[in-house]
Amino acid sequence: MEKKIRWGILGCGRIAKTFAESLQHVADAELAAVASRTPGKANEFAKAYNVQCYYENYLDLVKDESVDVIYVATTHNYHHEHVLLCLENKKPVLCEKPFTVNSKQAEDLIKAARQNKVFLMEAMWTRFLPCIVELNRLLSENIVGDIGLLRADFGFRAKGRNAHKYYFDPNLAGGALLDLGVYPVSFSRMVFKKSPLSIKTFGYIDSSKVDEHAAYMFEYGYGKVAMMSSSFSIDIPHDAVICGTEGYIKIPYFSRPTQFSIKLHGQEEKTVRIPFASNGLNYQAQEVNKCLKEGKLESDIMPLDESLEIMKMLDALRKEWGLKYPME
Amino acid sequence: MEKKIRWGILGCGRIAKTFAESLQHVADAELAAVASRTPGKANEFAKAYNVQCYYENYLDLVKDESVDVIYVATTHNYHHEHVLLCLENKKPVLCEKPFTVNSKQAEDLIKAARQNKVFLMEAMWTRFLPCIVELNRLLSENIVGDIGLLRADFGFRAKGRNAHKYYFDPNLAGGALLDLGVYPVSFSRMVFKKSPLSIKTFGYIDSSKVDEHAAYMFEYGYGKVAMMSSSFSIDIPHDAVICGTEGYIKIPYFSRPTQFSIKLHGQEEKTVRIPFASNGLNYQAQEVNKCLKEGKLESDIMPLDESLEIMKMLDALRKEWGLKYPME
Repeated sequence: MEKKIRWGILGCGRIAKTFAESLQHVADAELAAVASRTPGKANEFAKAYNVQCYYENYLDLVKDESVDVIYVATTHNYHHEHVLLCLENKKPVLCEKPFTVNSKQAEDLIKAARQNKVFLMEAMWTRFLPCIVELNRLLSENIVGDIGLLRADFGFRAKGRNAHKYYFDPNLAGGALLDLGVYPVSFSRMVFKKSPLSIKTFGYIDSSKVDEHAAYMFEYGYGKVAMMSSSFSIDIPHDAVICGTEGYIKIPYFSRPTQFSIKLHGQEEKTVRIPFASNGLNYQAQEVNKCLKEGKLESDIMPLDESLEIMKMLDALRKEWGLKYPME
Repeated sequence: MEKKIRWGILGCGRIAKTFAESLQHVADAELAAVASRTPGKANEFAKAYNVQCYYENYLDLVKDESVDVIYVATTHNYHHEHVLLCLENKKPVLCEKPFTVNSKQAEDLIKAARQNKVFLMEAMWTRFLPCIVELNRLLSENIVGDIGLLRADFGFRAKGRNAHKYYFDPNLAGGALLDLGVYPVSFSRMVFKKSPLSIKTFGYIDSSKVDEHAAYMFEYGYGKVAMMSSSFSIDIPHDAVICGTEGYIKIPYFSRPTQFSIKLHGQEEKTVRIPFASNGLNYQAQEVNKCLKEGKLESDIMPLDESLEIMKMLDALRKEWGLKYPME
C-alpha cells in the first residue's frame, strides 16, 4: 500500500477548513494533526474533520514527528513567524498566500528553507488546477502568438457587507492587494514568465490605513503590458484575458477556472472545459506530496524564487501608494 | 408630407458607403449629393446609391444650396480643412471621428461653428445607439452605485493582414489611438461625465512613426479609474465593463452594442437586449435631422465641448508617448 503523507494544519480558520476538506480527495494524504492557539478551537476542528490529534499551541504540532508536512493557514502577518518555526524544526511547509507580508520576509523564509534543506512552497493553488495546467501548456506553444496585453481583475465590495474585519486591519497586513491582488499579480508572473521592468499605478488607502482599491499596469518591454486591479470597495468581474498577435484567451474566474475560450484571428471561438475535483485546493496538496516523495525541496511549478518575485511586485505597488504596515 | 433633410457626403471612402446605406433607413433623410476629388469616384458612388447629384470637387458640394447638411467622411487629417470649408459656407456638418487630429484643430472648428452659427457634431455614432441610450439612462439612476472602475479596450491585429495603409501613415494622422482609442476614450468621458485629473500610460510608437499599441489609465478623483487600451498589433476583446459599489455592467462590443448585462451585488445577472436597425449609423443621422429641425447648433448628447475634451485626452496621451504628426 502506498505510504500516505501525514499533514498537519497550523491555524484553524476558514481556509484551514477548506484545505481539510480538499485533503479528503487526495489519495495519498491524511490529515494527522491540527493546532490552534485559541482554546477549544483545535479540538472542535479535529472533531469536525475526524483528525486524531490536536494541539493548543503551534510548537507541539511542529515537533510532532508523525507529521510529514505542515500547511500554514494563519493570517499573513504570521506567516513569517510560523513558517520559520516549521523550517527551523526541519518540517516541510505549504504556506498560504500571500507568501509573506513583504519580500524581506520572503527572503528570510527562502534562506531558512535552503539552509535547513526543508521543502517550502507558497499555496498558490490556482497554478495546479487542471484548467491552468492546460492553459500553460497552450501558452508554451505560443497559441496566441506574441502576448501584448494581459488583463486580470479581482475585486468585490467587502465594506459594510459583513466584511471580515481582517480585510481592513493594518496590523494583520490587510488590504485588497495582499488578499486579492496577489492573484492577478501572480497570474501576470505566470503568463509573462518574468518580472516587470516598470510599474504604473493608482492606489487608494482607506481611513483604516490599508488599500481598498487599486489599478496597476506592469510593463515587460516593448508592447507588453499587464493591466490589473484589486478592490474591496467595488465588484469587478473576476476574469482574465491574454491577448496576442494571433488572438486571445478569455479565462473567467481566473483564480479558480473550470474553462477558458480561445479566439484565434479569423477563426471561431473555441471553449476548453476542464472542471476541478473537490474545492480545488487538493491539487496543490498533490504537488506537495509528489515533491516530498521525490525528495524535492521546491516545486518546479511554484518555485521559491517566483514567490519572492511576486512579493517584490506587491512591495513595489505598496511603495508607490505609500502603504507601510505597522510591523514593517 | 414631412420635409426631408437633404444630405451631402464629402469623401467617398468606406465609411461614406456605410453612412449612405444607413441613410436609407432614416425616414426624413435623403442623400442628395456626393463629392470626391478622385476622378470618377463620386460618379460611381452616386450610381451605386442612386444619388442624383455628384461633384468632383468639394467646394461645389458645399455651395450646393439644395444640400442641408454635409457628412465629412474624409481621413482625419482632412477634417479640419473640410469642416471649415463647410462652416465658412454656412453648411451644417456631421464630422467623422476622430473629430480632428488634435485639440487645437477642434477648437478652431468649434469657434468657426459658433461664429458662423452653424450646426456641427462629431459622428460618435455609438452614443445614439438604443442600447447605449438605455445604458446611459440606467447610469443616470446610479444603477451600479458609485463607479470605481471602467475598463474598455479596442484592438485588432492590422499589421501584415491586408491592413489599410492609412492605419500606419503619420501623414494621415494614423495610429491605433485616433482610429480605435477614440472609442474607449469617448466612452470613459460618457461614463464619468468629466475629464480625468491625471493620466498614466504605456504607448508604443511603430517604425512607421505612429502608435501601434497602448495601454492607459485615467483617474477622476479618489478611487475612480478608467483602464483602457487600443492596438493595431494584437487582437483584444472589444468589451467594456463598468464597476461600482453596487455591482457591474458588462457591455460586449461597446462601440456597437446590442446588449449588456447587469450584475448587482447578491443578485442574478440580468441581460438587456436592444438591437439596432440598419448598420447603426442611422441613429446619429436622426439626431442631426432632429437638431436641424429644432434649429439647434449642437447636439445635447454629443456637444462640441465634449468632443474638444476628448481631443484633449488624445493629445495628452500622444504627448506622453512623444507622438507628433508631421502636420502639427
